[in-house]
Amino acid sequence: MEKPYVLGIDMGGTNTKFGIVDARGNVLNSSSIKTQKYTDINEYCDVLCHEMMKLVDAQGGIELIRGVGAGAPNANYYTGNIENAANLPWKGVVPFAQMISDRMGVPCRITNDANAAAMGEMTYGVAKGMKNFIMITLGTGVGSGIVIDGKVVYGHDGFAGELGHTKIIRDSSARLCGCGQKGCIEAYASANGVARTAKELLKTTNRPSLLRKLPVEEVTSKDVFDAAMQDDEMAKEIFDYTGNLLGAKLADFIAFSAPEAIVLFGGLTKAGDILMQPIVRSMNENVVRFWKDKVKVLFSSLKDSDAAILGASALVWDVDAQAPMTTK
Amino acid sequence: MEKPYVLGIDMGGTNTKFGIVDARGNVLNSSSIKTQKYTDINEYCDVLCHEMMKLVDAQGGIELIRGVGAGAPNANYYTGNIENAANLPWKGVVPFAQMISDRMGVPCRITNDANAAAMGEMTYGVAKGMKNFIMITLGTGVGSGIVIDGKVVYGHDGFAGELGHTKIIRDSSARLCGCGQKGCIEAYASANGVARTAKELLKTTNRPSLLRKLPVEEVTSKDVFDAAMQDDEMAKEIFDYTGNLLGAKLADFIAFSAPEAIVLFGGLTKAGDILMQPIVRSMNENVVRFWKDKVKVLFSSLKDSDAAILGASALVWDVDAQAPMTTK
Repeated sequence: MEKPYVLGIDMGGTNTKFGIVDARGNVLNSSSIKTQKYTDINEYCDVLCHEMMKLVDAQGGIELIRGVGAGAPNANYYTGNIENAANLPWKGVVPFAQMISDRMGVPCRITNDANAAAMGEMTYGVAKGMKNFIMITLGTGVGSGIVIDGKVVYGHDGFAGELGHTKIIRDSSARLCGCGQKGCIEAYASANGVARTAKELLKTTNRPSLLRKLPVEEVTSKDVFDAAMQDDEMAKEIFDYTGNLLGAKLADFIAFSAPEAIVLFGGLTKAGDILMQPIVRSMNENVVRFWKDKVKVLFSSLKDSDAAILGASALVWDVDAQAPMTTK
Repeated sequence: MEKPYVLGIDMGGTNTKFGIVDARGNVLNSSSIKTQKYTDINEYCDVLCHEMMKLVDAQGGIELIRGVGAGAPNANYYTGNIENAANLPWKGVVPFAQMISDRMGVPCRITNDANAAAMGEMTYGVAKGMKNFIMITLGTGVGSGIVIDGKVVYGHDGFAGELGHTKIIRDSSARLCGCGQKGCIEAYASANGVARTAKELLKTTNRPSLLRKLPVEEVTSKDVFDAAMQDDEMAKEIFDYTGNLLGAKLADFIAFSAPEAIVLFGGLTKAGDILMQPIVRSMNENVVRFWKDKVKVLFSSLKDSDAAILGASALVWDVDAQAPMTTK
């Protein structure tokens, strides 16, 4: 009998979500556990697999499950290990894919969250049918998944696609990024980056803004968006600045892999046109002339709540996969 | 009978070199014609093929030739066309690969010069056995060929790998690049870029330098190198500055494709350690921490005079090629 379903896991620093997905990208059934609650990785895997097995049993049993795909921070696609993840409770190198196969009795494959998002977009989303595109995730940080010739790029060590940590500002004013470097695009074009821009403007200028009603240290990217929607000049300028910097960086990425499209995903994309317009303008101003107005910039079409699980599940459907799946 | 040889063509704006190459990368026989002499592309192809056929006949006849590979400006690997090349006498779109197969009676495949160099390095040079590396050509301009998973990256339109036109300086001081954009790494880390840095320093400072013996507008990168070899402080500083900028940009490239190595090729690499040291230092200062001191920077091992012909010939040996070869 053909196995019609896969399990997708979206492991974040706070929550781990998981669900059963069919080949059309429907999430049939999902649940979650608290990642931080389990300081012992064995206990975490025991609970996760126990909870997943409940969903599996409700859906007809493990015989219907082709495998497990997981998106996780610092996941190495080649080895199946999670390596030195700063935001997870488990230090060092964790053989996560193997631990899951051992418990579930089906194969498992893992990758980082942005690569999983790219797989999801290619399998079920706006990049369906595309062979060359770049996925940029604009959340707390800036992540990326690069697809060339229909495959996610993993590179020599499995960690390719860290575009959030390429530099956009190289002078003395460059912001310190969470990675320890200065001037990374993540420090400007993430939700945190937008909030930092707002705080800088509020502190260093006297310009009027709706944002001044809030305690300055608590301003979020959502607040900036809400103010911009009320036609607040400073808030609109913040999105302009953000889009300008990100667009200039996208032009660099185009020169690398000549993608058909760049797909934007994540919380910050809720800003819509107010972010998209400066991105597209700046990208086309900065790109080599033969790509001017040629490369599409698209918002992801996947539902936020499902996208990460879908992306992870797509790892299992991938028949051209470059890495083997673990087996029990 | 196995066909043991291929023809490699290295088309430049001034000269077109070509030669017969065996599977071990020996150039058995080579010659050249003047590119600029032929304003009619048909006449150019007639003469080129006539001259190549002389070499072929001397080597035992066309039955021994597996095909023709060519490296040319603005060559589109997918279509076999040369498209709107600024430095060639023929305007518009030229179906070069087809024109060569028609005349020679063997298949032909083309790519741009930097991609050809990458193929050559992977087939015969220091990148032999590597699956993931980036070739950077430091000549009059800065070119690049990106290899991922053993294949040159061509992207959606065939023009991927224009890393010379990614930006290193984004403020008002940024230099105008030949491409029309400002601040491209090509405007700093090419032979021309080194000469421009020298001219700027000579004009805007009163610092002593051996370079002051030359007419300022005629200073070349070779002059700067010669002065540096004589321990000239300004000349050494120019290479330091160049290496610093290029190294910072290489760090960005690493974040994209996580290569095993970056291979540098072309005239400027003759500078040796004086260029290599600041490149490596700056690259490791600017790269995301888990790649620090992990990515090799190597000089090409191919003889300058043969490299382009070798690279072009490697297109024909490529059994995994993504583009078909033209046939008569």
